[in-house]
Amino acid sequence: MQESYTAEEIAEFLGADIRGDKDAQIYGLNTLNNAGEGELSFFSNPLYKKELDGTKASFVILSVEDSSDYAGSCFIVENPYLAYAKISHWFCSDKTKRLANGGPPKIEENAFISSGVVIGNDSIVGDFSKIGSNVSIGSNVKIGKHTRIFPNVSIYDDVVIGDNVIIHSNSVIGSDGFGMARREDGSWEKIAQLGIVNIGNDVEIGACCTIDRGALGNTTINNGVKLDNHIQIAHNVVIGENTVMAAYCGIAGSSVIGKNCVFGGDVCVVGHVEVCDSVMITARTLVTKSISKPGSYSSGTTPLMDTKSWRKNAVRFTQLDTIAKKLNKIKNID
Amino acid sequence: MQESYTAEEIAEFLGADIRGDKDAQIYGLNTLNNAGEGELSFFSNPLYKKELDGTKASFVILSVEDSSDYAGSCFIVENPYLAYAKISHWFCSDKTKRLANGGPPKIEENAFISSGVVIGNDSIVGDFSKIGSNVSIGSNVKIGKHTRIFPNVSIYDDVVIGDNVIIHSNSVIGSDGFGMARREDGSWEKIAQLGIVNIGNDVEIGACCTIDRGALGNTTINNGVKLDNHIQIAHNVVIGENTVMAAYCGIAGSSVIGKNCVFGGDVCVVGHVEVCDSVMITARTLVTKSISKPGSYSSGTTPLMDTKSWRKNAVRFTQLDTIAKKLNKIKNID
Amino acid sequence: MQESYTAEEIAEFLGADIRGDKDAQIYGLNTLNNAGEGELSFFSNPLYKKELDGTKASFVILSVEDSSDYAGSCFIVENPYLAYAKISHWFCSDKTKRLANGGPPKIEENAFISSGVVIGNDSIVGDFSKIGSNVSIGSNVKIGKHTRIFPNVSIYDDVVIGDNVIIHSNSVIGSDGFGMARREDGSWEKIAQLGIVNIGNDVEIGACCTIDRGALGNTTINNGVKLDNHIQIAHNVVIGENTVMAAYCGIAGSSVIGKNCVFGGDVCVVGHVEVCDSVMITARTLVTKSISKPGSYSSGTTPLMDTKSWRKNAVRFTQLDTIAKKLNKIKNID
Repeated sequence: MQESYTAEEIAEFLGADIRGDKDAQIYGLNTLNNAGEGELSFFSNPLYKKELDGTKASFVILSVEDSSDYAGSCFIVENPYLAYAKISHWFCSDKTKRLANGGPPKIEENAFISSGVVIGNDSIVGDFSKIGSNVSIGSNVKIGKHTRIFPNVSIYDDVVIGDNVIIHSNSVIGSDGFGMARREDGSWEKIAQLGIVNIGNDVEIGACCTIDRGALGNTTINNGVKLDNHIQIAHNVVIGENTVMAAYCGIAGSSVIGKNCVFGGDVCVVGHVEVCDSVMITARTLVTKSISKPGSYSSGTTPLMDTKSWRKNAVRFTQLDTIAKKLNKIKNID
Repeated sequence: MQESYTAEEIAEFLGADIRGDKDAQIYGLNTLNNAGEGELSFFSNPLYKKELDGTKASFVILSVEDSSDYAGSCFIVENPYLAYAKISHWFCSDKTKRLANGGPPKIEENAFISSGVVIGNDSIVGDFSKIGSNVSIGSNVKIGKHTRIFPNVSIYDDVVIGDNVIIHSNSVIGSDGFGMARREDGSWEKIAQLGIVNIGNDVEIGACCTIDRGALGNTTINNGVKLDNHIQIAHNVVIGENTVMAAYCGIAGSSVIGKNCVFGGDVCVVGHVEVCDSVMITARTLVTKSISKPGSYSSGTTPLMDTKSWRKNAVRFTQLDTIAKKLNKIKNID
Repeated sequence: MQESYTAEEIAEFLGADIRGDKDAQIYGLNTLNNAGEGELSFFSNPLYKKELDGTKASFVILSVEDSSDYAGSCFIVENPYLAYAKISHWFCSDKTKRLANGGPPKIEENAFISSGVVIGNDSIVGDFSKIGSNVSIGSNVKIGKHTRIFPNVSIYDDVVIGDNVIIHSNSVIGSDGFGMARREDGSWEKIAQLGIVNIGNDVEIGACCTIDRGALGNTTINNGVKLDNHIQIAHNVVIGENTVMAAYCGIAGSSVIGKNCVFGGDVCVVGHVEVCDSVMITARTLVTKSISKPGSYSSGTTPLMDTKSWRKNAVRFTQLDTIAKKLNKIKNID
């Protein structure tokens, strides 16, 4: 049975004013969009005002100012994001207990498990899958059929991996996303990362890649995605079907990449943007905003030159605004 | 004995028209340049027309258009690159069978194997070499003398490592190169990576590096090369003697780097270029073309500024072509 | 008892002229600043002239030219940096012997050690700490209380880790820094990395990170630091309290980063610079010099554009110096 807390217990822990039923049972923590009956959410970013208005969360953590506009049950605190960080660990420890009480892993008959592999409770390895030596698989992990995991890969609890997947050595699937809230003294409160990683079928992931679990909700790698080495997929990212990325591509938190995209090496995408289907991006581009039209995009490094020439031009870059303004003052240019 | 296939079996699998002896035995798959008697090759990139004309491959996979210019035996298909991807797996499974039937690894008397190490069939660890805990070594791996492999390194099948080599923790040697061909439905067919990695003597490789095996032929790290952490060496790359690279350097597929080069941190080199001997490259440069003259080269990031000034100048970068054109219209500049 | 060498033994190995007591005992190797009685140091970089004048090292390795200015005991060689590299291994092998003779590791009663973990002599795992499966821990490692090390992490000898620390999977702590001196024949002599890594309390380190040990002296990660995935911290770096860095940040050797800094993704800092407290740096900036004033700093990639427009502007970058000079020749711009 799932553990729950009363609204009053939560209010007390957070030092929050409470509005609503003190005896209400809270079973989980979720985003404003996805939270339902019995779940808690939080509101701290004004961009999500619409989501606040439409949320089905039983309780929302918010600030005094925002509480006046909100009709539902809520916890009123000074710093809602920090309060969310603090309470997040309650729902993580619940999961930990559940995993510790599970049954032995289930290895299908034709699966092959190499030496030194460790597999946690309740995990499943499907038919004809092969797990390389010294792989570590957490609890409640589901691995499909004909999937191959190479040596020294680490898979955290609750990760789901499809059929015909290949994961190369020393990659990490399901590590914590990089989330924290700042305390008043300047130190950081970790936000428990409660989501999972969901990897579809026919995916290939290179060596030394990291795919972080969702903070709330999932990180999703859809069918047919191919990732080269040293790739970083942050929490809550979605990668569309058949998209391929060359080495060192990094996608920051909550960004959504479309289907059939082709990214050159070392492309980085900042957080919370969307890249539509069929976008090509050249090597080393930094994607700083959403892309809504298929095509080829670039930014980034200037052309290769001898170092002396490059230095001269690079210094001029620092004067570029001045140069442009000066030029604009010249009259009579036809 | 090595496994082989008849030309007819291959034609049938690929749905190819065949020109030449249907009963010919095909033992291997190789590049146009390196293929010999009994080997299959493919032609899809017009840049390699000369190699096609001179190939000694028994059969070549090519398109209808290209077949009219070619006098030798061939398989004629719509998409030669995709056909190569598909047939590549036949020559991979052959290797798999061979490795599974090998004998126990051979550990020389003075080698030291730590706890948790797994070593595959037919592998050799040389005198005075030390293998750290939880290292995974595949089958048919050759490791020389006085070599030190630190914990949690993964070495795939068939890799060759010389004497006095140091490989730091969690690096991966011999993982699959990033190669695939697009199917008509937009999904990707993996190309089996049939080559190996060959590491010379006195090489040091940092932590969390990845060195991919060749697609066909080898990836080669020559004597005395020193690599820092987080380095990526793609399939079929060659790194010349005594070249050093700081952290995050990435060399894309089939590029050849000369001897005695010094690369600063985060230098990336695109695929299929050549960098001659004695080249210095400053930190974070993207090498987009071959370099044939020793010297120092740069590209890349603009100088450090306060963010506000930088933003103003960066916006002007987007107007740079217009600025230059405007300036060119001004008459009478002496 | 600590091993020592006579000045005469060292001079002979280095082929050095010796000035001072030939029978003096040398116990260790250290920087000019930190060396004391019985320790050896070296001088090769003119920037450290003041440190040479004030050193308390019993002996200093230096060149003929520099020896005339120096009154203390010294070894006089042609290439002091190379001589330092060569002799450094003597003080490393001493450490190796010491570690090999240690006692069994000490696991506090409430610590949890998962399957496949290997722990070296003299190491300690504190109360309530949890070590994930297949983690490799060297000798003389100290791990505090309530610390969590995830699967497949590698921790080298002598590393010190505080309380409430989290280290995610496949990270490497204490690998050798990237240091070497060039020999006359162009090959490289490795410099033994004799320092350690010291990680404070409440630190979180992401997956696939590398934190190198000091060459002489320590690499230090202070309390409350939070590092995302794929981070590289080179030898002798210091990261100040509560500083956070997003994925792929790399800090080169001996740089010092202040407290409360916030670095976006893929920020790289070159070696031997200082960044003061409370500095924000935007994604993908290359920090090429010290920063002494709090604030936000940037460099790097130009704005995102369609590839065609970007190419046109990027070519103009190579003409920027010429453009600026041309503009400066125009008279009468008000």
